[in-house]
Amino acid sequence: MRRLSWRVVASVVTGLALTLEALPWLLSRLQVRRQRRPRRDVLFFPSQVTCTEALLQPPGAAPAGPSVDCLCSLPHSESSLSRLLRALLAARVSLELCLFAFSNPQLGRAVRLLHQRGVRVRVVTDCDYMALNGSQIGLLRKAGIQVRHDQDLGYMHHKFAIVDKKVLITGSLNWTTQAIQNNRENVLIMEDAEYVRLFLEEFERIWEEFNPTKYSFFPKKKQGY
Amino acid sequence: MRRLSWRVVASVVTGLALTLEALPWLLSRLQVRRQRRPRRDVLFFPSQVTCTEALLQPPGAAPAGPSVDCLCSLPHSESSLSRLLRALLAARVSLELCLFAFSNPQLGRAVRLLHQRGVRVRVVTDCDYMALNGSQIGLLRKAGIQVRHDQDLGYMHHKFAIVDKKVLITGSLNWTTQAIQNNRENVLIMEDAEYVRLFLEEFERIWEEFNPTKYSFFPKKKQGY
Repeated sequence: MRRLSWRVVASVVTGLALTLEALPWLLSRLQVRRQRRPRRDVLFFPSQVTCTEALLQPPGAAPAGPSVDCLCSLPHSESSLSRLLRALLAARVSLELCLFAFSNPQLGRAVRLLHQRGVRVRVVTDCDYMALNGSQIGLLRKAGIQVRHDQDLGYMHHKFAIVDKKVLITGSLNWTTQAIQNNRENVLIMEDAEYVRLFLEEFERIWEEFNPTKYSFFPKKKQGY
Repeated sequence: MRRLSWRVVASVVTGLALTLEALPWLLSRLQVRRQRRPRRDVLFFPSQVTCTEALLQPPGAAPAGPSVDCLCSLPHSESSLSRLLRALLAARVSLELCLFAFSNPQLGRAVRLLHQRGVRVRVVTDCDYMALNGSQIGLLRKAGIQVRHDQDLGYMHHKFAIVDKKVLITGSLNWTTQAIQNNRENVLIMEDAEYVRLFLEEFERIWEEFNPTKYSFFPKKKQGY
């Protein structure tokens, strides 16, 4: 009996040892799950000027991708702008834009393209920059995209986008060609549920506050910067 | 013998079961470690105007904290500005600032305070905004803080800070009182090694490019925005 209980103890120990043997595998699985982490990129500007035509083809045209056929003289490599365009064009359901200034034609085309594809696009912008030289806001409105603007004394100075309520794109970059090609800027692309939730709440707050039914006809003039 | 091997199998199974019993505990430990995650906050502006005197006491004065003694008429609660000040004032070793515009007096005091405490402060700014009304840049320089500025055609439009090479503070907010009190803005505070590394590399690139030995005496005038 005594010998037996020793055997039982030994077997229990073997069992424990076997399971402990399996632990590294289990932990490595957890590790893999942790490594397969959500998207998080940082884009720095100024961006190299590259051809973005292949990305901006309308529905029905050749699928987006690096075009080998385009004969323009611009480089056909990746750039910060092309990466930003790709992140936006990944939208399938919804796109919220909260932008101080929006005048870059490529980004404007991308947003209109998403609207054509049936993505629900909503735009909030600063009223002082709606009529900026080359502003895209008029073109977005003509295309049927909903745009709301502030009438506050302060600026609506955010520069963020939310793609499919899953990815937050935010940083210092105003969506102007001047900023993209000449300024030192940063843009974070973060697939992050918590940040998306907080920025989406901010968007909805502003969207509701800028409801056109609340507009006054003689807004006060802004001062300072 | 046959009975014995059944016992052995039963014991091995018991051992496995016991270890599996312990798994939830092991996983919960891992969970706890995952929950004790690094700091990540989002501040939205405009900020309520609150008293920040208690935070900005010079070395030797009463320790920072909510002041019960201050008799000013401002609220003594937390605000986005006070949270931003706290994040900066946590610096013990180094502070890198890369700021388009810097004119808010409280943030200026906080940076000078850190310099007094022996924190190594380095500032990069845009030359067009150095002489902005109420700019803090002159005061920082007078205090002995190193400041470098661009001479590019584009703007140095970043608005980020790196605290102790551990925490990144970045967003849309220019460090002006106008922006803090009136604009809609966001600031992310992220204790994140990867983001810190990328932004620190960007800072060092700019710091080196803006080395005063490279300044020309007749820089070109900027255009656009």
